[in-house]
Amino acid sequence: MARRDLYPSRVSEKASISERKDPIIHNEEAYKQGPLSKSELDFYEENGYIMLEKFFDDTQLNMMKQELQYTMDNNRDRDSDEVIKEPSSNEIRSIFEVHKDGGFFEKLSQNERLVNICEQILGTQVYINQSRINFKPGFKGKEFYWHSDFETWHVEDGMPRMRALSCSIILTDNYEYNGPLMLVPGSHKWYVSTAGETPDENYKSSLQQQEVGVPDNQSMEWLVKQAGGRIDRATGPAGSVLLFESNTMHGSAGNISPYPRSNVFFVYNSIKNKLEQPFSGKDPRPEFVANRENVKPIEPVRNLSYSSKY
Amino acid sequence: MARRDLYPSRVSEKASISERKDPIIHNEEAYKQGPLSKSELDFYEENGYIMLEKFFDDTQLNMMKQELQYTMDNNRDRDSDEVIKEPSSNEIRSIFEVHKDGGFFEKLSQNERLVNICEQILGTQVYINQSRINFKPGFKGKEFYWHSDFETWHVEDGMPRMRALSCSIILTDNYEYNGPLMLVPGSHKWYVSTAGETPDENYKSSLQQQEVGVPDNQSMEWLVKQAGGRIDRATGPAGSVLLFESNTMHGSAGNISPYPRSNVFFVYNSIKNKLEQPFSGKDPRPEFVANRENVKPIEPVRNLSYSSKY
Repeated sequence: MARRDLYPSRVSEKASISERKDPIIHNEEAYKQGPLSKSELDFYEENGYIMLEKFFDDTQLNMMKQELQYTMDNNRDRDSDEVIKEPSSNEIRSIFEVHKDGGFFEKLSQNERLVNICEQILGTQVYINQSRINFKPGFKGKEFYWHSDFETWHVEDGMPRMRALSCSIILTDNYEYNGPLMLVPGSHKWYVSTAGETPDENYKSSLQQQEVGVPDNQSMEWLVKQAGGRIDRATGPAGSVLLFESNTMHGSAGNISPYPRSNVFFVYNSIKNKLEQPFSGKDPRPEFVANRENVKPIEPVRNLSYSSKY
Repeated sequence: MARRDLYPSRVSEKASISERKDPIIHNEEAYKQGPLSKSELDFYEENGYIMLEKFFDDTQLNMMKQELQYTMDNNRDRDSDEVIKEPSSNEIRSIFEVHKDGGFFEKLSQNERLVNICEQILGTQVYINQSRINFKPGFKGKEFYWHSDFETWHVEDGMPRMRALSCSIILTDNYEYNGPLMLVPGSHKWYVSTAGETPDENYKSSLQQQEVGVPDNQSMEWLVKQAGGRIDRATGPAGSVLLFESNTMHGSAGNISPYPRSNVFFVYNSIKNKLEQPFSGKDPRPEFVANRENVKPIEPVRNLSYSSKY
């Protein structure tokens, strides 16, 4: 029997918008449980994101920055799929799968304070579906156009339901003027089925610049209108953590300011929402962007400490 | 005898920064005279710009928007140097020389309230050195990299001194998230001599995307540092007027929001600062970007009214 697709996309020449079919907080008792308060959960449910200011203190922040630099330096001359470079130069923009480094970032991905929040929202134990460190240089950071992560994860990776969230640990101050992530509040409540079809091995170019799975202008206008015209920006000091729902429409403008931006990015998925065959009918994307091998719930780890490399 | 060049640029392989050699307010009695108040003049002198919120009322604003639309429609199929289109499409981005349209925008450029402010700051009668209407579409408005207008006007047009200002009449609300103009406060007090040499007919590509006359990263970092790390954005409601000094370093990120941006742009120059031969030694740029024919001081006009086309 054919599998039912709750969120079809890239199946028609015409885009369309439908209602979300999953809860946002997957746990009716979440507000009793913590660590997020009722008002924090309400904000997340309403807007599809929440910024937790100064979640990590300066000692932890410095540790993360050093480990990021170390990992960047180690990968500079590596030519590998996990290392994504700027379209027009050889500079590193992202390194994927850092949660399997057997060291600092693996431990960070298991951080108890983060994992507890994800379990609270997703209502089950969780695992890392994707991870990366991002480096957006000053002066020439490229824009990233609007997209819903879930749309890609569903179509290209076979994530069945909206039961995942992204966690961005901000390692540099995010200002209005250095290309902060922009989010359309409330957009996670709607699913934009995009026009077109997924090409083979789409991920090879889409990690640099997305061409399919991109919402049409009319849908974007509609989403911004339902938000009362608002587009929010994830500004805040280094050490803050941005959590956003898998289906929240987001993007970022370029960065011509001298200020670079870097962050650590973990996607937490419910252990009940493991990847299946891609709904596109194409081959799955590789393991480094969408984990499906040996998936096990995270055992939370309390403390952060330098990797043994130091 | 060789002419003395107070602001050499594009003459070396190495960039450098020097102090401004001209006043910012060219009139010691300016504060006694109005229309700008002492505190407004002080802000302009210190920061190199000032935003005059809701300078035009809604009736005047609607008139300007209709006239802009009319002019855009009239030029859509015109293939002319004055009509600048997006690099990657046929959409109009700017139309130059609107202050010679014999109609609405000519009268607007002579608007008494604007002209009085320019005379107050520049200390003499003024004329229009360049004008244009700009349209930056939603979703795909391109970035414009950092630059000092004066650097180009001096090198390519032969403007001898820093005694001009730009006036941008904002016809659409400018938000943090639709690619507002960004300015480095205080940058007008320093002159960045950029590296390289001016190619022949540089204006043909530089009006779409500037490649020479672009400040180096080190100079930009220095300028932002002297500003205490600040980069200001010209946000504000439609009808506001942004005035900025000829040498203020400015640029804008791209615009992926659904909100388009349009404005009317006039460059007022002191009648004592008329264009000479370009300091690059090359041919002057054409009249439509740098007026040198029949230059006369503006006779201010009191009222705004629709062009006879309506």
